[in-house]
Amino acid sequence: MAIITLLTDFGTQDEYVGVLKGVILGVNPAATLVDITHEIAAQDVAGAAYTLAAAYTYFPEGSIHVVVVDPGVGSDRQIIGIRINGQLFLAPNNGVLSRVIDRYPIDDIVSVVNENYFRHPISYTFHGRDIFAPVAGHLSLGVELGAMGPRLPEHRIARLDTPLPKKPEKDDRGRLKGRIIAGEIIKVDRFGNLITNIHWRHMEPMLLNNKKDLLVIEVGERCIEGLAESYAHVPQGEPLAILGSRNCLEIAVRDGNAAEVLKLRRGDTVRIQVGTEGTCQE
Amino acid sequence: MAIITLLTDFGTQDEYVGVLKGVILGVNPAATLVDITHEIAAQDVAGAAYTLAAAYTYFPEGSIHVVVVDPGVGSDRQIIGIRINGQLFLAPNNGVLSRVIDRYPIDDIVSVVNENYFRHPISYTFHGRDIFAPVAGHLSLGVELGAMGPRLPEHRIARLDTPLPKKPEKDDRGRLKGRIIAGEIIKVDRFGNLITNIHWRHMEPMLLNNKKDLLVIEVGERCIEGLAESYAHVPQGEPLAILGSRNCLEIAVRDGNAAEVLKLRRGDTVRIQVGTEGTCQE
Amino acid sequence: MAIITLLTDFGTQDEYVGVLKGVILGVNPAATLVDITHEIAAQDVAGAAYTLAAAYTYFPEGSIHVVVVDPGVGSDRQIIGIRINGQLFLAPNNGVLSRVIDRYPIDDIVSVVNENYFRHPISYTFHGRDIFAPVAGHLSLGVELGAMGPRLPEHRIARLDTPLPKKPEKDDRGRLKGRIIAGEIIKVDRFGNLITNIHWRHMEPMLLNNKKDLLVIEVGERCIEGLAESYAHVPQGEPLAILGSRNCLEIAVRDGNAAEVLKLRRGDTVRIQVGTEGTCQE
Repeated sequence: MAIITLLTDFGTQDEYVGVLKGVILGVNPAATLVDITHEIAAQDVAGAAYTLAAAYTYFPEGSIHVVVVDPGVGSDRQIIGIRINGQLFLAPNNGVLSRVIDRYPIDDIVSVVNENYFRHPISYTFHGRDIFAPVAGHLSLGVELGAMGPRLPEHRIARLDTPLPKKPEKDDRGRLKGRIIAGEIIKVDRFGNLITNIHWRHMEPMLLNNKKDLLVIEVGERCIEGLAESYAHVPQGEPLAILGSRNCLEIAVRDGNAAEVLKLRRGDTVRIQVGTEGTCQE
Repeated sequence: MAIITLLTDFGTQDEYVGVLKGVILGVNPAATLVDITHEIAAQDVAGAAYTLAAAYTYFPEGSIHVVVVDPGVGSDRQIIGIRINGQLFLAPNNGVLSRVIDRYPIDDIVSVVNENYFRHPISYTFHGRDIFAPVAGHLSLGVELGAMGPRLPEHRIARLDTPLPKKPEKDDRGRLKGRIIAGEIIKVDRFGNLITNIHWRHMEPMLLNNKKDLLVIEVGERCIEGLAESYAHVPQGEPLAILGSRNCLEIAVRDGNAAEVLKLRRGDTVRIQVGTEGTCQE
Repeated sequence: MAIITLLTDFGTQDEYVGVLKGVILGVNPAATLVDITHEIAAQDVAGAAYTLAAAYTYFPEGSIHVVVVDPGVGSDRQIIGIRINGQLFLAPNNGVLSRVIDRYPIDDIVSVVNENYFRHPISYTFHGRDIFAPVAGHLSLGVELGAMGPRLPEHRIARLDTPLPKKPEKDDRGRLKGRIIAGEIIKVDRFGNLITNIHWRHMEPMLLNNKKDLLVIEVGERCIEGLAESYAHVPQGEPLAILGSRNCLEIAVRDGNAAEVLKLRRGDTVRIQVGTEGTCQE
């Protein structure tokens, strides 16, 4: 049973998502369709890139991930299919796969141009329906990715300039000048949790003897001591720092909405450093 | 594998859609359920009629489309089942099928009254659960539409008085007085695109030598020259006219929200005429 | 074909629901997944309890209901699995099953602790993904509930103190002092309908000769005579009382939004009594 996931900025008020599914099921009635989300902000390619990367690894090998956040629809932007880490992706070549391809070697890339697998006539504005959906349907039936068009070299994949945490500076002798990482909030989720781009792999080298309570996190006007192991770590209404479900540093407020309480939003800076008890009072 | 689509004004915050699905799966555990949308504005029969017509043709032959936008639930309004264009529809007889039946000949119509296929007891307020869902489940198992109740003559189907574009006036000698069509905005989609009721079949006869750049579109206080072939046709933030995914004239703003930028909404007028370069300046 | 329903407060803007589904399908690719709703207000355990109870009975026997409204995630709150009324439930032990277990005898209860059925590593913040989803997947494959952990005694299940309608007072001789029930609004649905906690089993004993028009309902500053049999019972814009789809008293406004028109919300009081024509004028 082939799994096809859908990630779009279509919203759910219009018929667009239903139409995608109708076209896919017309090609492969046995496909299992899963919505990742359709609430990506209109044309927010960067937001979609993060969400996709946070979601796809939880799907079984061989899943097909269709991403339609496509401000350039109808222009000469390409549509690409890539195989990576045992999974298939179909997306506009606008950088939305950036966060997928930066973690694993790419096994195959094609430019999707074979109109035999498209729906006709091809509209100017809805390639989701006319190209992405039928191509995904055929891929789920076992058609080879290579049948969809010519191979592309890897440097042809568009990449977003997504912010990465800044590495600590070094002094003249190559030693770290303090152990500070400056990252940023890349997403506010439904609960108001502030998800940062500081991954566990950035934080782990900072831990002395694995002591999470020695980390000090500065965000907005707040200073938080220690990395919590659950929301119950602090009193209700208080902020905490925690390793979130994306394996990245998150700022939350227990039983509350951190974005509202702390008045922070996407793009705001978060600093993390090794401190001692009392660092926040200094 | 039978496909059943659902189009309602239930929203997704309550249990109502889940309950529909539970009842259907209780009758036919193998049914494939697809949401068109549940975000039709409460009791917006006309909006549902347009959305249904824009969606259903993309589903495979034999699909069953269940429409529950039903302000008259519990009154003496009928529930009807119709077969048309290779597909089945189940809906209250309140005009919500108007835009489906105006395009193809109807193959069969029944009044759905056979309580053997209903869920019991039948509530006053939730026929979606007690009638539509179980009947759809049985239809998806292959029960004949005719088993659900007596045939109805076609004139018994309620029709909405949905606006159609006005045909150009003719002069005394039967010639067109200019080539002008006046239509209206029938939907604002998630992107703020303004979808009109001016279909390609209305526009095509206006094209001289297929020259799309000679069409002039007036909407609100704006005048747009030419029909674009993609959103990239104009600079960012500028409005454009384009043949949209419903095969109707749409007004969009590149990388923006046309409804907000142009301050237009459903019901507003759109005029399209054959012009020349510079018509908008006159 | 195993049915797994999902009821969460995750919303649909993030990847969380998609991730749950990916993990479940990784365990059981043939599971049929149904969303009840993901729009429970963040951490609204009581709201989820009512919604679950209103939904689950419409699913076929053997369905598995996964409830993740879990403010205590990562704390020492338990996760429980129960079998009741032919169905399985998986939920945090925070009272969210209160409205399910108060109606039927419980057949089995376990504390879900067997990490062999969990996803690893287990995060601090997303047990939906790491525990609920894989356990549900395994249950849907036929693994026994008892394999998930030790049996719990029934008194260990957390119960919410959900409001029940107050029974009428009695006089010195044990006779009812009037036939009045005071309940409250427990939910405002998408249509603005006000769903109360006054169930048909509370109202039925009040009916003299089954005369629904003798009931008098007071809500806010309004007095409504009689129980309507459909929304069409009153003129447009007028309020009515009706037995709703949850088999409870609901207050609605015909073709309107009762919550807005009557300025009422969750928690507000509703009184129902036996009256006579004209009671509202007294």
